[in-house]
Amino acid sequence: MSELRWDPVKLHWVIIAVERGRRPRDFQSEPEDNGVMSCPFCYGNEDKTPPEIFAIRSSGMPNAANWRVRVIPNKYPALRVEGELNNRGYGMYDSMNGIGAHEVIIETPDHNRGLADLSVNEITDVLIAYRHRYLDLRRDFRFRYMVLFKNHGSRAGASLHHSHSQLIAVPLLPPVAATQLRVSRSYFNAKERCIFCDIIDFELREGIRVVKEFSNFLVLTPYASSSPFELRLFPKRHSHDFALMNDSQLAELAVAMKDMLLRIKNVLRNPSYNFILYTAPPMHRRPGKPDHWNSLEYDYHWHIELVPRLTQVAGFEWGTGFYINPTSPEDAAIFLREAEI
Amino acid sequence: MSELRWDPVKLHWVIIAVERGRRPRDFQSEPEDNGVMSCPFCYGNEDKTPPEIFAIRSSGMPNAANWRVRVIPNKYPALRVEGELNNRGYGMYDSMNGIGAHEVIIETPDHNRGLADLSVNEITDVLIAYRHRYLDLRRDFRFRYMVLFKNHGSRAGASLHHSHSQLIAVPLLPPVAATQLRVSRSYFNAKERCIFCDIIDFELREGIRVVKEFSNFLVLTPYASSSPFELRLFPKRHSHDFALMNDSQLAELAVAMKDMLLRIKNVLRNPSYNFILYTAPPMHRRPGKPDHWNSLEYDYHWHIELVPRLTQVAGFEWGTGFYINPTSPEDAAIFLREAEI
Repeated sequence: MSELRWDPVKLHWVIIAVERGRRPRDFQSEPEDNGVMSCPFCYGNEDKTPPEIFAIRSSGMPNAANWRVRVIPNKYPALRVEGELNNRGYGMYDSMNGIGAHEVIIETPDHNRGLADLSVNEITDVLIAYRHRYLDLRRDFRFRYMVLFKNHGSRAGASLHHSHSQLIAVPLLPPVAATQLRVSRSYFNAKERCIFCDIIDFELREGIRVVKEFSNFLVLTPYASSSPFELRLFPKRHSHDFALMNDSQLAELAVAMKDMLLRIKNVLRNPSYNFILYTAPPMHRRPGKPDHWNSLEYDYHWHIELVPRLTQVAGFEWGTGFYINPTSPEDAAIFLREAEI
Repeated sequence: MSELRWDPVKLHWVIIAVERGRRPRDFQSEPEDNGVMSCPFCYGNEDKTPPEIFAIRSSGMPNAANWRVRVIPNKYPALRVEGELNNRGYGMYDSMNGIGAHEVIIETPDHNRGLADLSVNEITDVLIAYRHRYLDLRRDFRFRYMVLFKNHGSRAGASLHHSHSQLIAVPLLPPVAATQLRVSRSYFNAKERCIFCDIIDFELREGIRVVKEFSNFLVLTPYASSSPFELRLFPKRHSHDFALMNDSQLAELAVAMKDMLLRIKNVLRNPSYNFILYTAPPMHRRPGKPDHWNSLEYDYHWHIELVPRLTQVAGFEWGTGFYINPTSPEDAAIFLREAEI
C-alpha cells in the first residue's frame, strides 16, 4: 500500500509508491517501445491488463477486441481504491495511507497513432470516456479531487509508447488546485466576475497571445507561461465543470483539441508534452462543512493546460519555485498561429 | 532585459528571459560536449567568457590561466545587474523588470572531472568561492534572496559539460524560501526550538534514514522525499547562515560533500543531479520594516538538498503539486549507506 507523507518544512505531500519499489538499477535505462506484439494496450492483448472499467465498442463482450477507447486500472497504481482513510502521526511527521484511484484511458487500439493523429470523432470518444470516468469516480466520497492528465513522450514521463491518458483520484485537495480555487473564489467575491472569464476577455481584446479562436473555445499562450510554447484551452462561456459538457460540446472541443495538438506537433516536431485537465472538484455536501466550502467550485472555470517538455526543470526552479522561460508567450503565439496544420 | 511576470491564478512569478530568445528549432537537440578546445570554462579560453568577478589562483593576473576556481557573470543571464526595480501593471497582470545577478562558479580548470572527483582541498576552494560571492552580493540592497545551485548532466538542465555551479540573486523572496522561512519562524515561536534541529535530533534517534554522520555534519534521506535517492546535508549545530562558516568548517563540509557525491555517483552510476544550497537571506535593516521581518532569518538552518534526476516531472506532479516517489527513503538510505566509496 502506498503512503502519503507530509513534508513539515516544504508543506507538501509526497506519495511513496512502495509497490513500484524501484531499486538503483531500475533507473538506468530509458523506456523502450517494444512494439505491437507485447504492448498491453493493443488489440488481442486485453488479457495483459487488469479487467476493463469502461470501454466504447460497437459490439462484443467486455475485455474482447473491437473497442475504440478502453479504460483500465493502472497495473502499478500510485494509489489504491481499497480501504479506509487512515491519517496518523509519526514522531514530528504526518502520514496517510494511499487511498485513491489510478486509471488509464487507452485512446485508440492503434499502436502508432498519437492523440493528434486521431480523427475528430475518435477524439470525441476519448473525451466521452473522460467524462464518464469523472462522473463515476466522484460518487466515491473518499475522493476530494480528480486530475486527468496525459504524458506524451519519454521526456514527459510516459513509460509506454501506445497513446493513453491517466486519471488519478486523490483523498486531499492538491496545492495547485487549492490555490486556483481560492483565487477564483476571492476574485469572484470582490468583483462578482470569474477571473478566467476576465482573462479570456482581456486576451481576446489584446490578441497577441491568441493562437486560435473557435466559436466556443479559445487557445492562447498564457501571459506568465512558465515554459516555452505553453498553451491553455478555455471554453469561452463560463463553465466550472468539464463533466457537464454534452456530446455536441465535446465534439466541438475535439476539434479545438486536435487543432492545438497538431500545431504543437508541427511547430516543435512532435515534442514530448503533458496536458492537464483542470476542472472543479466534486461537490460533496458534507455534514458540518459551511456552505461556502461546498459551493467553492462554482467560481472555477475548467480548462486544459498543455506543456511541451522542451527544457528541463533545473536547480533554480526546484530551489526557488520561480520558472525561467526562454521564449516569450507572444513569440510562441506567432509561431503557433502561423503553423501549417 | 528579462521580465518577471506574475501568474494571477497560480500565484507564482515567471522569468521571461527574452535575451535567450529561443525559437522552435533551438529546442531540437540535446546539449553536446564539444570538448576542451572550444570549452569557455577551460584554461586558455578565459577570453571566451565575460571578465571574471572572482578567482582563486596562486599567482598571475585576473583572467589569465592558473586559476583553481573562477567566477564569471553568466553570458546569457536570466536576470541583469543594471537598473532600478520597476514594478508595474498591465491590464489584469503584473510585471517587473528582471533585476538580479547571475554568476557561474567554474569549479575546476579540468574539463573532465566532476565535483565528486575533486580532492577535498579543491572542493574547499569551491565552497570558499560560494561564501565569497554570497557575502559580496548581499551588499546589494536590491537583492532579497540568493540561490546557489548546481545542474549536473543534461537531465538536470546542464547545458555545458565542464563542472560548474550557479548563483542567482533575485529581487523577491521566492515561494520555496518564503514557505521554509515562515514555517521555521512559526515553529520557533511555538516551541523555542529550530524545526531543522528537531528533525536532525529525531532522525539521529531513528537511524533508518541516516546515510552518514560526521562530527559536525549529517547526510540523510528526507522522510518525505519527493524523488528517489534525494538527500539533505545539514550542519548538526544550529546555524542560519552558510556564509558564517569559517575555513576549517568549510574544509569539514568539503569532506561530507565529497562523500555524499561519491555515494550518489557510485550507487546510481553518475546520474544527472541538482543540488541547492538553502541559506538565510541577507538581513537588510530596511527603514519602516518591523523587527520580526528583519530577524526572520535567525530561525532558519542552512542545508544542502541533492536531487538525482532519475524520473521525469510528469502531468500528475505538474497538475497537482503532489509528487510520486517510487523508492522509499528508507530503502534509498540502505543502498547509500552500503555504497563503496
